Amino acid sequence: MTQIKQYEEILGLVYWDMRTGAPRKGIGLRSEAVGALSSETFKLSTSEEMGELLRALNEPGELAKLGEIDRRLVEETAKEYERNRKIPPDMHREYVVLTSQAESAWEEAKEKNDFPGFVPYLEKIIAFNRKFIELWGAKATPYDTLLDMYEPGLTTEELDRLFGELRARLVPLAERIANSPNKPDTSFLAGTFDKDAQNKFSKHILNEMGYDFEAGRLDESAHPFATGLNKNDVRITTNYLPDDLTFALFGTIHEGGHALYEQNIREELAETTLCTGTSMGIHESQSRLWENTVGRSKAFWDRYLPDLKTYFPGQLDEVSAEEFYRGINVVEPSLIRIKADELTYNLHIMIRYEIEKMLFNEQLDPRDLPEVWNRKYEEALGVTPANDAEGVLQDVHWAGGAFGYFPSYSLGNMYAAQMMDVARRAIPDLDEQIGAGRLLPLKEWLTEQVYQYGKLQRPSEIIERVSEQPLQSSYLCDYLENKYREIYRLE
Amino acid sequence: MTQIKQYEEILGLVYWDMRTGAPRKGIGLRSEAVGALSSETFKLSTSEEMGELLRALNEPGELAKLGEIDRRLVEETAKEYERNRKIPPDMHREYVVLTSQAESAWEEAKEKNDFPGFVPYLEKIIAFNRKFIELWGAKATPYDTLLDMYEPGLTTEELDRLFGELRARLVPLAERIANSPNKPDTSFLAGTFDKDAQNKFSKHILNEMGYDFEAGRLDESAHPFATGLNKNDVRITTNYLPDDLTFALFGTIHEGGHALYEQNIREELAETTLCTGTSMGIHESQSRLWENTVGRSKAFWDRYLPDLKTYFPGQLDEVSAEEFYRGINVVEPSLIRIKADELTYNLHIMIRYEIEKMLFNEQLDPRDLPEVWNRKYEEALGVTPANDAEGVLQDVHWAGGAFGYFPSYSLGNMYAAQMMDVARRAIPDLDEQIGAGRLLPLKEWLTEQVYQYGKLQRPSEIIERVSEQPLQSSYLCDYLENKYREIYRLE
Repeated sequence: MTQIKQYEEILGLVYWDMRTGAPRKGIGLRSEAVGALSSETFKLSTSEEMGELLRALNEPGELAKLGEIDRRLVEETAKEYERNRKIPPDMHREYVVLTSQAESAWEEAKEKNDFPGFVPYLEKIIAFNRKFIELWGAKATPYDTLLDMYEPGLTTEELDRLFGELRARLVPLAERIANSPNKPDTSFLAGTFDKDAQNKFSKHILNEMGYDFEAGRLDESAHPFATGLNKNDVRITTNYLPDDLTFALFGTIHEGGHALYEQNIREELAETTLCTGTSMGIHESQSRLWENTVGRSKAFWDRYLPDLKTYFPGQLDEVSAEEFYRGINVVEPSLIRIKADELTYNLHIMIRYEIEKMLFNEQLDPRDLPEVWNRKYEEALGVTPANDAEGVLQDVHWAGGAFGYFPSYSLGNMYAAQMMDVARRAIPDLDEQIGAGRLLPLKEWLTEQVYQYGKLQRPSEIIERVSEQPLQSSYLCDYLENKYREIYRLE
Repeated sequence: MTQIKQYEEILGLVYWDMRTGAPRKGIGLRSEAVGALSSETFKLSTSEEMGELLRALNEPGELAKLGEIDRRLVEETAKEYERNRKIPPDMHREYVVLTSQAESAWEEAKEKNDFPGFVPYLEKIIAFNRKFIELWGAKATPYDTLLDMYEPGLTTEELDRLFGELRARLVPLAERIANSPNKPDTSFLAGTFDKDAQNKFSKHILNEMGYDFEAGRLDESAHPFATGLNKNDVRITTNYLPDDLTFALFGTIHEGGHALYEQNIREELAETTLCTGTSMGIHESQSRLWENTVGRSKAFWDRYLPDLKTYFPGQLDEVSAEEFYRGINVVEPSLIRIKADELTYNLHIMIRYEIEKMLFNEQLDPRDLPEVWNRKYEEALGVTPANDAEGVLQDVHWAGGAFGYFPSYSLGNMYAAQMMDVARRAIPDLDEQIGAGRLLPLKEWLTEQVYQYGKLQRPSEIIERVSEQPLQSSYLCDYLENKYREIYRLE
């Protein structure tokens, strides 16, 4: 298990490098090397020896002899083993090489706005995933099998219900906002913002959040991400846009939230495969909690707007914290998910969710994706991409084969709202704390409640322990309604 | 063999990362992961299966059936196999983890000028190497065994002779220079030179040399290095000193020379273990050829000084190419090897060579290294380090266990001078070409003569094919005498 963990750490570093600046021409051979090492890791996790050890540990009475960590390790390992044993090793290797090359192809296709150039990769990746579903065995629907990879136990049935509830309250809210005469002023967000100053302010905020730069680093990449190589090397990236003051900043806080999770897993899990977030949904709850509940709050900007002004002298002198807060929370249907406001963001996710279900449950032809994409954006958000780079090609996920991942973002929003409801009772003066630049009490509370456990508890166990109930959509809806009622002065 | 090559590529990337900015706290676990993967690579190279394959291929008549590349691959692999089989796998792994940690320890010790803090690592590394020598079998002397690792076939006997010849001509030359009244003016080299401009000019020169930035990248590290991960990903680092105009620049050209070698190995070797330089001596011949013969030549600065002036406006306006050329070639005994002039540089190497021989052939106690080091610097160069950071701790090599490597640098100088003698006959107007900024004809000639072969030919085969004779010290001595006679206007 340690060897598997170590190989995954090294593979994580190779992927980080590929995304942050590996020379283009070297990618071909690098992908082959990644394939070789992934393949070896895969073999370790599916070896006869592993099977025998797992069988022996699952003999009656054996598991009871183990401590909590080892028991959970055996359980997780057995699950991986069962799943991986069904995939022929050559198929796995081919798939790793393919997705590794597809990421570069996606980057090029996005740059050149060339969806047809990316289709062959997408077709192959989808075909592989269809085959995987067949080998693993389809659950209620084929897409359910994919969902379970990222949020163990989650079904399309439950997700349809949760997303239905969200839609029922958020769409009317969006309409009331659209009809409100009290639009926030966003004029001060326009301009050119020095990249270097953006970088320095991002670092400042990460420090304030308690991100440990001796156990991580901040770089640039086309698509921001966080990666925990080991718990003392958790790297994040962001993307500085010269004409956008807040894009890199909120990206950094988002990835910083992921990183706080990974950096604060308890030490005794460090060398085990449990040393990572328990699910993508819980992971996104932490990134989106920091990005939105903290980073887009009034209290936060009461404290940090004066700091921000010193990084961009003369550019924001006239803006008050109230105006800034309202400006960064403007609700506006838009094309790019990672630039979306907190409310319409969930509609972006639902579009991807619906499309993914169509791909796997209804055999949608990938060549038709741009058309379907554009129609759904028009229907749900009233906007149409001018080209595929700002449409179907905007996200890297499908290039990496991450079908079933997108719902995690909205799950994260729901988990986060539900947890924050508890946090506010545990830290009654939380807003005053944030307003005084004391972000660490929240970080400590989250460490105690969530981070330290890594994968030691399942997502459902975590949310139920923290909030004494299963995941609900109502907390997120309440939170958004309250927030926007005030900003847009709704009745 | 492909798998071994691929794992080495990935390990190379991990080392690159460790040296260019991996977070400090993650190094411990990373070193363990490196140990695990190195160990696996080591096992592949020493497996029973490998042994059987090599035996089968060495049956009478079998090798003759193979092509040139495969024959050479078998030969090199058999040599590695024989050597590695003698090292117990656990011992190898322990050593890899040790040297990986020792590099960080060295960095810290150098920063804090704390040699005693580094001694425990050094003692262990030396003990390991003594054990390796015992297992491999000592040649004429124990140190001969280490030499052979970096320059196959080289002996202390031959090196004593070559270094003796060098000393016999270079020490008197250094004395004549010291007594010359015609000292170059170096005042224009003092000042503060913007780091960013240094970086940009370094990149400009690398482009001029034909370094392919789509198959490589330039970063910063405490100790400059080049690493060929694969032939399309050859990375170099340099170190910008704000008060030194030329340190980073010549470092970049030096590492750029290494990189040209690796980037221009013929395509058909790309996926084999022959896709690297044939020896450290030949590798250093290419870095030092570009750094010195090209980068410190009059013709080069005739062309590039005007460029340099545009990167540092107002700072070098008064300097002529002739003055610049003389200034950067000032001969001055100094403490730091990588800052030394072309002449005294060889004396630095001889000091390390003598100390390494003492460590392995005479059991010198590592704790006495600073004393021995300082005495030898006083004797050979007339200078004494003020502290160990600028003395015995200045180089990373010993932290990585690279005993026997240093001689490569002077061998490189000798190889380079001997090759340049041929190059000047092949390209009679070479100086005019360089003076016109046409560096590519030289690069093409070196590609044809040296680079393309990778490890397909042995060092002795290369120098004898190129120059029709074995390695001589006289070409380097002639070159240096001619160069300094003119600069110092010696009789």
